[in-house]
Amino acid sequence: MLEHGGRLLRAARQYGIPVDEWLDLSTGVSPFPWPVPELPAAAWHRLPEDDDGLVEIARQYYQAPDVLPVAGSQAAIQALPQLRMTSRVGVLCPGYAEHAHAWRRFGHQVETCTAGELIANPDRHDVIVLIHPNNPGGERFDIATLLDLNARLARRGGWLVVDEAFIDVTPEASLCAESARDGLVVLRSVGKFFGMAGARAGFVCAPRLVLDALRERLGPWTLSGPSRHALRLALSDREWQAAARTRLGNSGRQLADTLLQAGLRPDGGCALFQWCRNADARALHAALAQRGILTRLFDAPASLRFGLPPDAAGFQRLREALADVRAGALA
Amino acid sequence: MLEHGGRLLRAARQYGIPVDEWLDLSTGVSPFPWPVPELPAAAWHRLPEDDDGLVEIARQYYQAPDVLPVAGSQAAIQALPQLRMTSRVGVLCPGYAEHAHAWRRFGHQVETCTAGELIANPDRHDVIVLIHPNNPGGERFDIATLLDLNARLARRGGWLVVDEAFIDVTPEASLCAESARDGLVVLRSVGKFFGMAGARAGFVCAPRLVLDALRERLGPWTLSGPSRHALRLALSDREWQAAARTRLGNSGRQLADTLLQAGLRPDGGCALFQWCRNADARALHAALAQRGILTRLFDAPASLRFGLPPDAAGFQRLREALADVRAGALA
Repeated sequence: MLEHGGRLLRAARQYGIPVDEWLDLSTGVSPFPWPVPELPAAAWHRLPEDDDGLVEIARQYYQAPDVLPVAGSQAAIQALPQLRMTSRVGVLCPGYAEHAHAWRRFGHQVETCTAGELIANPDRHDVIVLIHPNNPGGERFDIATLLDLNARLARRGGWLVVDEAFIDVTPEASLCAESARDGLVVLRSVGKFFGMAGARAGFVCAPRLVLDALRERLGPWTLSGPSRHALRLALSDREWQAAARTRLGNSGRQLADTLLQAGLRPDGGCALFQWCRNADARALHAALAQRGILTRLFDAPASLRFGLPPDAAGFQRLREALADVRAGALA
Repeated sequence: MLEHGGRLLRAARQYGIPVDEWLDLSTGVSPFPWPVPELPAAAWHRLPEDDDGLVEIARQYYQAPDVLPVAGSQAAIQALPQLRMTSRVGVLCPGYAEHAHAWRRFGHQVETCTAGELIANPDRHDVIVLIHPNNPGGERFDIATLLDLNARLARRGGWLVVDEAFIDVTPEASLCAESARDGLVVLRSVGKFFGMAGARAGFVCAPRLVLDALRERLGPWTLSGPSRHALRLALSDREWQAAARTRLGNSGRQLADTLLQAGLRPDGGCALFQWCRNADARALHAALAQRGILTRLFDAPASLRFGLPPDAAGFQRLREALADVRAGALA
């Protein structure tokens, strides 16, 4: 099993700091969650039904011709490699590591490449996996480039898989509207933008044939009743979505400024996180954790990812800890 | 995708009867659900963590040496066939059809057999799948017989898979306490007894090596945060569990009596459902549906499964509908 952010309980034990005293910046989940109202008892009690209206609402929200609800984009990441014969797969790196892990597990030939390498050599792979914007590097791609890449791959029966888990703040950059095109698979997540990582829910936007194969592979009842109920409401809540985009945009800029002022210039990021390469990343991670601030450490390249503090007090605490740490042994 | 019960929305459209006017007896889910309290916001917001105490609570409830939480026993049913080289698999039939479907999908040689055939010829298969008590037939097995079968299979590297989705009313019949034995895999569900089919949650009880392989195959965050939270409470609620056993036992007997008095002698069942073979099953199913009562129709053998009505009014409605239907064209 790969390592992930969000392991607050483990950090609390490791550093001897109670769970509720932490500032958890270890994930890219929005700290401004959509407020889930009380659930009807039937959401828990009854088997979920796939004709409950969720698909229609999601098609509207994603502006996609067709969607398949899945138990988080993680579920799709694990299932997609099972739908193809052994393929040459190029995966963006550094990037969300579960992609390469899943394709390797099912016997595909996986190469990890930079975005530039993947786009410059489209004939080198049968499947290209991009994360857009990339996590943690924040790389962005324009739609024309992606559609061109998709077309080149599709001509040979190949796929372009685009993980758009962090794109909701900038929906105009999404490929979802184009996702009926042959060989294009777009993954969306509700965990990050809606701040609902606990719901384990996401959507795949792709041609009907791919969605049918995926549905058959994933089996019935992939989403819980409570998650389906909450998502029908959250994906319909346009007013909240607009306000969240503004708020996340502002907070993202504030986070980048905070890091810059502390001498940690971000090497990339998006509204939901900032990413800093740093030779001392491991020591910095530990020093912040000793101060009750949990970040996400990457070993290769040595780097830290910072999620958004939830409020002014959180920003202040991060500023002080960074000043403290940089003034100390790591300065 | 196979056909299942619980398709109330579809039935409502098909028969032109509003959803809230139906008596839904099409599943084996308890009509007396554990009352889920309001959720903490963090259950929705944060990534679920696997060291949140759920595993320890589940080990207590199931009296099992080790357990793995899964997104319903369905998730385990789909994953288990991926952990073995091509095997000769004997599956109890008629029984929950997803078992045979899943083993076939991954290239195993599947034979569907009666319980008697499976137990009498243990050397004929590498994997034997039983449902205990069986759904819909209600067949039961004694622990000594099952452990003997397990031992014979394990000697050759084989597995006995026992789906105990409906066993919670009679926990003394469960194999969970023995589930550290080589080659024994026990599946438990919280959907039926706890009336929480919407939670999509279950547990696998098996030797550590099998659980580790299954965990790696299923990937991270298989259960939603709300489900983990609710389950920690439900599996700890001994008082509710004891009362539910009594109530379900009584209701199950009342359902069997009701069917018997209507001239439909049950051919099997358990506290949570009764099963009636009937040459006119299809017509009976339609006639009851026209009266707003949804049952589960099986084609081979022609039969109906009846879940528990939730209250006296539900029993009365079922009695009247059966009398009406049997007095009419189908009498």
